[in-house]
Amino acid sequence: MKNHRGKRTLLFPSAPHIASAASIVSKTEAQGPLGQLFDMVLEDDTWGEDSFEKAECRMFEEVVRMALAKMQRTPADLDCLFGGDLLNQIITANYAARQLNTPFLGLYGACSTMAESLLLGSVLVDGGFAGRVACVASSHFSTAERQYRYPLEMGTTEPETSQRTVTGSGCVIVTEAPSPDDVFHKIRIRAGTIGRVVDLGITDAANMGAAMAPAACDTIVTHLKDLERQVSYYDLIITGDLGRFGSEMLFSLCKDRGVDLSGRHIDCGCMIFHPEQNFHCGGSGCGCSAVTLAANLLDKVESGGVQRMLFLATGALLSPSATMQGESIPGIAHAVVLERED
Amino acid sequence: MKNHRGKRTLLFPSAPHIASAASIVSKTEAQGPLGQLFDMVLEDDTWGEDSFEKAECRMFEEVVRMALAKMQRTPADLDCLFGGDLLNQIITANYAARQLNTPFLGLYGACSTMAESLLLGSVLVDGGFAGRVACVASSHFSTAERQYRYPLEMGTTEPETSQRTVTGSGCVIVTEAPSPDDVFHKIRIRAGTIGRVVDLGITDAANMGAAMAPAACDTIVTHLKDLERQVSYYDLIITGDLGRFGSEMLFSLCKDRGVDLSGRHIDCGCMIFHPEQNFHCGGSGCGCSAVTLAANLLDKVESGGVQRMLFLATGALLSPSATMQGESIPGIAHAVVLERED
Repeated sequence: MKNHRGKRTLLFPSAPHIASAASIVSKTEAQGPLGQLFDMVLEDDTWGEDSFEKAECRMFEEVVRMALAKMQRTPADLDCLFGGDLLNQIITANYAARQLNTPFLGLYGACSTMAESLLLGSVLVDGGFAGRVACVASSHFSTAERQYRYPLEMGTTEPETSQRTVTGSGCVIVTEAPSPDDVFHKIRIRAGTIGRVVDLGITDAANMGAAMAPAACDTIVTHLKDLERQVSYYDLIITGDLGRFGSEMLFSLCKDRGVDLSGRHIDCGCMIFHPEQNFHCGGSGCGCSAVTLAANLLDKVESGGVQRMLFLATGALLSPSATMQGESIPGIAHAVVLERED
Repeated sequence: MKNHRGKRTLLFPSAPHIASAASIVSKTEAQGPLGQLFDMVLEDDTWGEDSFEKAECRMFEEVVRMALAKMQRTPADLDCLFGGDLLNQIITANYAARQLNTPFLGLYGACSTMAESLLLGSVLVDGGFAGRVACVASSHFSTAERQYRYPLEMGTTEPETSQRTVTGSGCVIVTEAPSPDDVFHKIRIRAGTIGRVVDLGITDAANMGAAMAPAACDTIVTHLKDLERQVSYYDLIITGDLGRFGSEMLFSLCKDRGVDLSGRHIDCGCMIFHPEQNFHCGGSGCGCSAVTLAANLLDKVESGGVQRMLFLATGALLSPSATMQGESIPGIAHAVVLERED
């Protein structure tokens, strides 16, 4: 166990390299604060396909092709694709993987998928099992609403704690060594922490932030303990899609455990929409952290604005059939450490 | 990429060790040819719970505890749990992982899950990222039928190509080094091959064997090519749940590619039920290969009856919403190499 530390943290001594990334979103996300940064914006969230599901699948496929094209590569150059989405049987990822024709390992981690895929991608690269992997997560407002909540045609209103599922696919390419064709040259993945399923008994499907915050707290506290680090080691601690309410809850839960996140924490769910877009607590969905990482956060590390970043994606393991049977909504959060190498 | 060979095959030079395994099934599986070998048989497939889903979740949880107890361990001794099932949002695995309170990475590979979890578990152990991992897959006839096909109350009849979803959970514990308390002492995992999503256009949800056979063929052919091996290197090539029709199709597809499986291939779906149980083409579901491996196949290697085994689990990536939108059913197959060490 030479690369295992403490309870749940893995070290990547070879420091796998982030070579490229890409993001595709819909118009709604493009109207948010990060609007100029996304690689592609869909004018129409069906993208001319005859269902939202087919549109999401095409987004997943295209974002992988795009991230690879930026570094003069194609899907045939991938040793493995790790990915997932929010749909039953992860159909987005499965059908996209069919089109991409790459070795594929399907994941289900709800909105924690971007960190889960980066963690496993780094394990494969660091262990010498792969030289180039794609890590992908995707979500789509219209496919998620009708599967998890209500048919869009009902026009239901949302409570104050709700978040809007991001329509977006994000892909990050992890490689064993830098190449001149890469988009990024200085971002290394040095460690990761595996999440644990944590459940404080939230049963409200319109309050995902509260379901995920305890898991995020658990992973942050465990990570710091495993590596004997203080919060101050990191310039930024990112969470995926806790939203405004969930972020406050995380802050308070961490404080109770002696960890003060003041001035170090930002949440992708709070970054992606303007408050005046009226999406209540912010963005959610596994595309939220995926596109924010791909379009914005990686640049912060590459440019040197941030030297060390702890990136967590947080998943609410919501299932309509489980909640209908009276179950609460558990959460999970995985984390990876991104560091700038000069 | 020191541990990568050919297109999709990974080598595990440290040869992670299979330390223990356990299986839980329902009465129907216990009435099959392997009936005496399972660790636990449920008298009632609700196991006294108030839903089939809750019963399946308890099976998943208990099978992990059981496999660990056999080697004098508890869930607290696990560095990671890899698992999945057939239900939307893999609720079986998620809720069981909550109860087990272990580091957890959720997978979705349909019936390929047992091989996917063993492959990733071996990667973690071989890379020094974990010392002891649990690899688990689960399915339940009654939860799967109502999610994927028809309500049980309808009493629909099945066509000749259909297979019966196995009610069963299987767990295999992979460790970095043998210990005297282990159940198995001689089984090593030496390599694995990552699957690719393959789709020959099957659209019949009652013919899963045909949807999976092309993927199994693709993985077997790629594996042999990557490692420059002949079929004769293996005493046995196992597939997960192709069933009788799918197995014939695999035989024929492999023959077309110059690979003759005669006398070397068996399928867990054909092993688990007696023909007189009238389940048409045999067993299916990710529990099928999981419990057959845990209860029977590992013993074959441990006892020396089989020296080298290629274990494939084959998944039909069936989704009711995708098939309703006119999509065909793609398949995927992952493989691991189990060898006896004297």
